[in-house]
Amino acid sequence: MQAYDLVIIRHGQSEANKQNIFTGWRDSPLSEKGIEEARAAGRQMRKDGFHFDIAFTSLQSRAIKTLWLVLEEMDLMWIPVVKDWRLNERHYGALQGKDKRQAVEKFGEAQVHQWRRGYATQPPLVALDDADYPKHDRRYAGVPDANVPRGESLKDVSARVLPYWQSDIVPLIKAKKKVLIAAHGNSLRALLKHLEGLSEAEIEVINLPTGVPKVYVLNERMLAAESHFHGDPKEIEARIQAVAHQTKKD
Amino acid sequence: MQAYDLVIIRHGQSEANKQNIFTGWRDSPLSEKGIEEARAAGRQMRKDGFHFDIAFTSLQSRAIKTLWLVLEEMDLMWIPVVKDWRLNERHYGALQGKDKRQAVEKFGEAQVHQWRRGYATQPPLVALDDADYPKHDRRYAGVPDANVPRGESLKDVSARVLPYWQSDIVPLIKAKKKVLIAAHGNSLRALLKHLEGLSEAEIEVINLPTGVPKVYVLNERMLAAESHFHGDPKEIEARIQAVAHQTKKD
Repeated sequence: MQAYDLVIIRHGQSEANKQNIFTGWRDSPLSEKGIEEARAAGRQMRKDGFHFDIAFTSLQSRAIKTLWLVLEEMDLMWIPVVKDWRLNERHYGALQGKDKRQAVEKFGEAQVHQWRRGYATQPPLVALDDADYPKHDRRYAGVPDANVPRGESLKDVSARVLPYWQSDIVPLIKAKKKVLIAAHGNSLRALLKHLEGLSEAEIEVINLPTGVPKVYVLNERMLAAESHFHGDPKEIEARIQAVAHQTKKD
Repeated sequence: MQAYDLVIIRHGQSEANKQNIFTGWRDSPLSEKGIEEARAAGRQMRKDGFHFDIAFTSLQSRAIKTLWLVLEEMDLMWIPVVKDWRLNERHYGALQGKDKRQAVEKFGEAQVHQWRRGYATQPPLVALDDADYPKHDRRYAGVPDANVPRGESLKDVSARVLPYWQSDIVPLIKAKKKVLIAAHGNSLRALLKHLEGLSEAEIEVINLPTGVPKVYVLNERMLAAESHFHGDPKEIEARIQAVAHQTKKD
């Protein structure tokens, strides 16, 4: 049994992933494949002796469902689960609900790549009366208005994920609790950039595969001492490529 | 839309219910029928406009899974969920794992009825080295030794459920939060006895059907002002009878 302090897992494939749609804060259920990815991750971790004391997830169904399936397979349904909006996916602004290939046709590949991967590039923002403005969804009723996004860059996502990481998760890891985080491509990229000390250019080309646990050992500064994806290397590489190719040559 | 402060729901049929086994603190997954009962309860409540701000459940998989299925059907996966051992099923002591009809053959119907329904009657207790002593299960590691049961009467169950109700749930209802509790036949009978002011003789003949929401309006003393099962009356009566007949003429 290897050492580990933290495991992060991006939700399994969602229906929107499958349809190649910018989803952001919209809810999209897991696809059949995504359900199986989550279950397989749980089975693998159980087989390899992983245990968690507490789990964190977002307020979005695809991450919560992924976590539930993992915990069910691990016989850990009973551990505490904390859900917080700060682990939500990046808010994709006015791109939410739009097909990624259509966006490429309309705005050009360079612009879409910039929106998807430019560290500080915000998408077109939504208006306050737009259905995609989160205050219209009761699950965000408790979030201070000033913090409710209308569209976020990865830098904006980091600005909510990292303070939450420091205040709510780090103290538990310091207390030797084994922590699992089930979240989203971009909230986890924000965390990964911090943990692994990556530059803005480096994080731009990182794609997190769906439903694959990434295992971290942290040092005394609560940064990555070592990390690896847990599972079959070929399978993991195939899933990384699948995410990378969502906008064709992106 | 009717008024409500609290909804309680007993988990859907478990595999052990189906096989007529005393389960207690052992884990038993929901049966296919139990999964459908839970989903149907969630669909019905969603259709009828119910919303919950927070949910409570036990540390046992069948109650947690029931809650998850209800929340998934209601599009409420994101609400906070609190899990606590004090909402667990009654610990059935040395009867755990035994077939109810075999128990009737071995000990006689009167004795088994007394164990099942006698308000203050404890089952034969388990020894500290018995696998059914909860301290051998890591999920109960945090429970003080003095509180860990070796076998409980309904009175013993009340002695853990009611203080938890008063300390952790009542303040939320007073703060106008809508509360859902997904738990077990006996932890909910203990609560029901308190809320409805039933005598020991009255609670003895009460059977809670699996997977049927019971809706409460509470008065200023946090006792039942009114209550009813939510759903089709014939279906509910059939499920109550199914539970009553688990030990034949019991």
